[in-house]
Amino acid sequence: MSGLAFEIDPARLLADLRHLATFGKQGTGVTRLAFSRPDVEARRWLRERMEQAGLAAAIDDVGNVIGEAPADGPAILIGSHSDSVPGGGWLDGAMGVIYGIEIARAVIEAGLAERCPVDAVAFQDEESTYLPTLGSRTLFGAVGEDEISVARNIDGHRLADAIAASGFAGNPPRRLDPGRYRAFLEAHIEQGPRLEAMETRIGVVTAIVGIRRFRVHVDGQAGHAGTVPMAMRKDAGAVAIGLSGALLEGFAALAGPDTVWNIGSLTLTPGAANVIPEAAEIVVEIRDTDPAILDSLEDRLRALARDHADRSGQEIAAIRTLDIPPAAMDPGLGGEIEAAARALGAPHVRMPSGAGHDAMVLCRYMPSAMLFVPSIGGHSHTVIEDTSEEDIVLGCRVLAGAVARIASG
Amino acid sequence: MSGLAFEIDPARLLADLRHLATFGKQGTGVTRLAFSRPDVEARRWLRERMEQAGLAAAIDDVGNVIGEAPADGPAILIGSHSDSVPGGGWLDGAMGVIYGIEIARAVIEAGLAERCPVDAVAFQDEESTYLPTLGSRTLFGAVGEDEISVARNIDGHRLADAIAASGFAGNPPRRLDPGRYRAFLEAHIEQGPRLEAMETRIGVVTAIVGIRRFRVHVDGQAGHAGTVPMAMRKDAGAVAIGLSGALLEGFAALAGPDTVWNIGSLTLTPGAANVIPEAAEIVVEIRDTDPAILDSLEDRLRALARDHADRSGQEIAAIRTLDIPPAAMDPGLGGEIEAAARALGAPHVRMPSGAGHDAMVLCRYMPSAMLFVPSIGGHSHTVIEDTSEEDIVLGCRVLAGAVARIASG
Repeated sequence: MSGLAFEIDPARLLADLRHLATFGKQGTGVTRLAFSRPDVEARRWLRERMEQAGLAAAIDDVGNVIGEAPADGPAILIGSHSDSVPGGGWLDGAMGVIYGIEIARAVIEAGLAERCPVDAVAFQDEESTYLPTLGSRTLFGAVGEDEISVARNIDGHRLADAIAASGFAGNPPRRLDPGRYRAFLEAHIEQGPRLEAMETRIGVVTAIVGIRRFRVHVDGQAGHAGTVPMAMRKDAGAVAIGLSGALLEGFAALAGPDTVWNIGSLTLTPGAANVIPEAAEIVVEIRDTDPAILDSLEDRLRALARDHADRSGQEIAAIRTLDIPPAAMDPGLGGEIEAAARALGAPHVRMPSGAGHDAMVLCRYMPSAMLFVPSIGGHSHTVIEDTSEEDIVLGCRVLAGAVARIASG
Repeated sequence: MSGLAFEIDPARLLADLRHLATFGKQGTGVTRLAFSRPDVEARRWLRERMEQAGLAAAIDDVGNVIGEAPADGPAILIGSHSDSVPGGGWLDGAMGVIYGIEIARAVIEAGLAERCPVDAVAFQDEESTYLPTLGSRTLFGAVGEDEISVARNIDGHRLADAIAASGFAGNPPRRLDPGRYRAFLEAHIEQGPRLEAMETRIGVVTAIVGIRRFRVHVDGQAGHAGTVPMAMRKDAGAVAIGLSGALLEGFAALAGPDTVWNIGSLTLTPGAANVIPEAAEIVVEIRDTDPAILDSLEDRLRALARDHADRSGQEIAAIRTLDIPPAAMDPGLGGEIEAAARALGAPHVRMPSGAGHDAMVLCRYMPSAMLFVPSIGGHSHTVIEDTSEEDIVLGCRVLAGAVARIASG
């Protein structure tokens, strides 16, 4: 173990979290959409809290809040996003942001800023109100002007207008220098039921899954469901149902331990009881941390689509509409989080992240790691999302322990 | 064969059909919704044509047009409906109405009205713009005042208002006396592809299928499609897909030669790519002329629903939302149509009707039979519906031949 020793303050941590939840409060959760008034006010407050912690804090021209430790690097960057989905939870993203502030503050209080500089960050629009991971990508120059100029929210409002209205537009732009950092650490709620089910309190993320999404379209021919004999039908629905069943079975046969898949939408057209469906559309999503498994599931999907098209004599088109590659977390950093958990007697487990996070962006520029705390009932992206105070505090202690280990490594 | 001899006039038959198609003309088809202005005008013209044919014609208080032969019974009633669906075909219903007028006219012209009285009829709202088979049921007192008072069209307009606006409301109500009739004959386009595929020109309807419709609801639990492991899901979509596949296979195993079934709608909720479906709803329809086959398919549906509920641990509810019993046509009358077809050298076949018709109502009160002519391409309920002039004329000749046989029987 290192000679570095500092303690986070659980009461202060929880008080800051509770205060952040007042911005956009909605029942037990929050609606704090990127660039909305509550989001802008929350970011101003976060900048103040970073300043009070002893960081040199600023909001950049898209709303990222960055607090820099009063020391040269190599530093550790800690944070997440402070924006939410509509009717989201109070911890999603927000917890990781406050962990960053609390750990930076504790380090400075302990007089360790020089030996262990910790920068805190609150990224903008991870939740894709306008553009997914807008804030973290902007910090590395990875968002094009053209991307910003066409981005709109679900109501059709332009991102450019939202940036202007927020008052952020006049702030100096910011880029992060990977040379300053030895690590990025992001803590987040699990957003799933695994830690709770295993009675484990800390998840050490091995990788963020890759996502491939497909729209599968089946052609048929409409007809009267009473007068067209079964043998003369070209029923897009029956073919889509058969193909969907085969996909679910086929994926199960090829899956690794952490592979997940979903048929979230299946639509028959025209959708009337007495009309043979003339078209069907299936939306299929597959996720895994291993590109080889994603490849084998995609191959199976395409083979089954061809097979069912041949058998039915109907056209089937499978179009990949989304392809996000898996993002590996740094094993060395993960090992330090594990060691810190072990030192605190916290039950922990290695696991993939099934959801996307800013660390997916950061890991392209610096060694990155993620820590999960349990989500009660597995709930996420709903106002009933919650994590026990004990788990919130333990998660921050483990992350602080990892910081001490990394800084003295 | 009988001593009765009369000839229909093909040119007059086709001219009347073309004229009827001008009311509500839409491209090659018609939009002549019950009680709409084109429907009302068409009915006034039909009444005139019946008068000109030598019938005592009247429009009743819901819009049925009835032309009575100038003779006591036993008479033969011939007709169908003159209303259409939106963007419907020019022959659907209309052809059977004009057959009735042409045959009644030919009989009177031949001086055979006394020996072979033929009444013509154009029923109201078979297509269920407001109430299914409103007209034919009204003629036997089988529509309740309460049913009329709550009926509305798809736009929310009340049937009672439509009747008042049509001007029919003031007409004397009409009831048909089954004692007057030895038979009801309805000619109709097939609305399916069977006659064309068999290169057969006349269908002799054995029965109108019974229809049972079910709404099957599957319960699940929403969740993040990335973070919830497969083994911990309650995926309503996956269960619905499996059940739907099993239903399609199970029905095929139990089906008779004419059984048809359809899954016309399958809905996943909320229907997002990255959300595990929390609910699914399947709309299933089964049709056959044999109640025992309908029973066995319904039993299989319920058994499979129980089985899939047990295996998944998720609730499945199957509710029957429609149950129309099969309606048998009179075999003796069917035999006369067959004999008439044979005498004219017309290829014919016995077949069920997969769609509903006014004969479904009439057969409860008098011996009834139906004759089908081929639908080009099997099209129906679309403006491209059509039948060759040769087939239209042949159908009327066969029906006239059957009338002569029945009247002299």
